[in-house]
Amino acid sequence: MDDTNRTIVLAKRPDGVPEKDTFEIEESDVPSPEAGEVLVRTLYLSVDPYMRGRMRDAESYAEPWAVGEPMEAGVVGEVLESNHDRWDAGDVVLGDLHWADYTAASGHSLTPVDTDLASPSAYLGVLGMPGRTAYFGLLDAGDPSPGETVVVSGAAGAVGSTVVQIAKRAGCRVVGFAGSEGKIEYLEGELGADVGIDYTETDDYREALDDAAPDGVDVYFDNVGGPITDAAFSRLNVDGRVVVCGQISQYNDETVASGPRKLGGLIATRGTVQGILIWDYAPRFEQATEQLAEWVANGELTYRETVTEGLENAPDAFLGLFEGENVGKQVVKVADFEG
Amino acid sequence: MDDTNRTIVLAKRPDGVPEKDTFEIEESDVPSPEAGEVLVRTLYLSVDPYMRGRMRDAESYAEPWAVGEPMEAGVVGEVLESNHDRWDAGDVVLGDLHWADYTAASGHSLTPVDTDLASPSAYLGVLGMPGRTAYFGLLDAGDPSPGETVVVSGAAGAVGSTVVQIAKRAGCRVVGFAGSEGKIEYLEGELGADVGIDYTETDDYREALDDAAPDGVDVYFDNVGGPITDAAFSRLNVDGRVVVCGQISQYNDETVASGPRKLGGLIATRGTVQGILIWDYAPRFEQATEQLAEWVANGELTYRETVTEGLENAPDAFLGLFEGENVGKQVVKVADFEG
Repeated sequence: MDDTNRTIVLAKRPDGVPEKDTFEIEESDVPSPEAGEVLVRTLYLSVDPYMRGRMRDAESYAEPWAVGEPMEAGVVGEVLESNHDRWDAGDVVLGDLHWADYTAASGHSLTPVDTDLASPSAYLGVLGMPGRTAYFGLLDAGDPSPGETVVVSGAAGAVGSTVVQIAKRAGCRVVGFAGSEGKIEYLEGELGADVGIDYTETDDYREALDDAAPDGVDVYFDNVGGPITDAAFSRLNVDGRVVVCGQISQYNDETVASGPRKLGGLIATRGTVQGILIWDYAPRFEQATEQLAEWVANGELTYRETVTEGLENAPDAFLGLFEGENVGKQVVKVADFEG
Repeated sequence: MDDTNRTIVLAKRPDGVPEKDTFEIEESDVPSPEAGEVLVRTLYLSVDPYMRGRMRDAESYAEPWAVGEPMEAGVVGEVLESNHDRWDAGDVVLGDLHWADYTAASGHSLTPVDTDLASPSAYLGVLGMPGRTAYFGLLDAGDPSPGETVVVSGAAGAVGSTVVQIAKRAGCRVVGFAGSEGKIEYLEGELGADVGIDYTETDDYREALDDAAPDGVDVYFDNVGGPITDAAFSRLNVDGRVVVCGQISQYNDETVASGPRKLGGLIATRGTVQGILIWDYAPRFEQATEQLAEWVANGELTYRETVTEGLENAPDAFLGLFEGENVGKQVVKVADFEG
C-alpha cells in the first residue's frame, strides 16, 4: 500500500458544463480507520449523470457537495483494515465513498460484494443502482404488458440498456434512442431492441417514431429529456405511461430550458407521467439484485462497461457522460483487484 | 310550440380565438321524431371549454364537428313527443343534443332529470359532467389526505368551484387561482377556500404560492395550464400529484405554446402527473351524482350558475368562457320550463 491518498474535491461550482478546474486532486496521508470504521481501497468508482445536480448549491434529492470537500461516488473497494465486526481485510464491499484511492468509512454503511457472482464493477452497474433503477422504473412505474411498445431514451447507457432488455423480456416492442452508429448496432444486436433511432442522424423524432413505433407509444422511459421526449409525448397512446428517470440533456443548463407545453396532450391520452428515484425502492433492493443477478447468470441480461483507467481521469469520465461517450455503464478503474 | 327550429351550426373552423362568424343560425321546421326517437325542447344547454377542441379538424378524444353541421352540447330539455317506450311528453331529460330549440333524439341516448332534487340546469353543472369531473378528478386521481395542500386553477369555474369544496371537505388546505376580485371573494367566502389568488393582480405566481401554500403543494388540480401551472409544479412536494383536467389557456392557440420544461423537477419530487377524462369514469357516474346530490341537499356543496338568456346568445356565452366571464357553470337558457 502506497502511503499517499489522492482525493478529488469539488474545486468550484461549475457554471454550465463542468470544466477541468471544477475538480482538484488533493494529496494526503492514507486515513486511519477509527473505531467502527474500515479502510477501503477503491477498486472501481461510478460516475453518474445525477452527480451534476450535487455540484449545484441547491437543495434537491441529493445533498449538494460543499466546495473544497471530496466528491462522492458509488465505490466497489477492498477492505484493507477493519475496526468493524462485520468486515475483515480482503472483503470486497460497496459503499458511497470518496473519489479517492482510499476512504475510511463506517462499517455499517457498506454492503458485501460477491465476486463469484459477477465482476466487482457490475455492482456499480447492472447489479447496482442503474440496474435497480431500470428494474423498478420499468416494471413498477412503467408497468408494461406483452405487445405494448416501450420507447427508451439514452437506450445504450447504463440504465437504458437494462430497460431495453427487461422490456423485451416482458414481451414488448422496444424502440431505443441513442447517439451513434455503434450504439444503434449494440441496441439492435446484443440488446435485442426492435429498432434503434440514431438521434444524431435526424431532427424529426416524431417521424422516426411513426416508423419505429407504428402503434404508438405505451411506455416512454426517459433518461434524457428535451426534443426526444417531446416527440415521445406526441406519440403517446391512450393510458400511456411516462417514467421520468433522468433528464441528462438539461443537467448543465443554468436556466430552465423551454420546450413545447405537453400537458394538454395528457388529457386526450389520460397519460400518466411519474418521476422516479431509486431510493424509494430501498426495501426491495435485494429482490431486484437477486433477479438481475439470475438474469445475468443465465444470459438473459447482458451488460457493457466503459472503463476509464486511473483516478486522475475520473473527471474526464464524468464529463464524457454528457457527450454520450459511454456505452453501458461508465466506471473508473482505480486499482487492480488482488483478491 | 313554435313551428320554427333554430339551430346553431359551425359555419367555419376558427383560426385562433373563435369569432362571431364561426357560428351561424339556421332556421328549419321543427323535426318530427322517428321510431325510437323523442322530440326534445331545449331548456338549458351547456357551453364548455373542451368544445373548442371539437372545432378543430383534428382527432382527439371528442370527434371534431363538421363544418355546416349542428354544434352539440349537453342539454336539459323537455320531452314534447315520444316514440320511445321509456319517455312520455312532459319528462325532463339530459342528453347530448344540438345547439337548437328542438332536437329529435334517439330515446336510448337520454337520461332522466329529477327536478325535485335540483333545478334542471344543475344537471349540466354540479350534478353533471363538471361536478363528476371534480369528484373523480380530485378524489381518484388527486387522492388528497387531510392536512395536505390542494391548489386549484380556474377555481371559480364549474369544475374548480366543486373541487375547492370537495377538497375542503376532505380536510385539506385549499388555494384557488381565479381572475377577479369578485371571484376571490366567492372563493374565500362561499366556497371556503383558505386563500384565493387573483392572477390578474400579480405575475409572480411562485411568490403568491409561497405565501398561500407555505407547506408546498401536494395536489395541483389544473383547469388552466400556462404560467400558473408552471408555478404550481415548481412548488410541488415529494409525492405530489398533478391532475390535468383542462388547459383552457391553450385551447385557442394554433401552434403549441412553449413553456419551461418541468419533467426534471418530477424526479426530485417523484411527482405524478395524470390527465383525466370524465368518460373513463362512466361506470361510476351514478355513484358520483348521488353523492353530489346529497351534499347539495344538505348544504355541504354550493354552486353558482352564470345564465345567458336566449339560444342566439350561445356563441357569446361560449366565447365568454375564454375571457373568464363566468362564475360557476356557464349555461344558456333557451326556454322556460313549464313542467
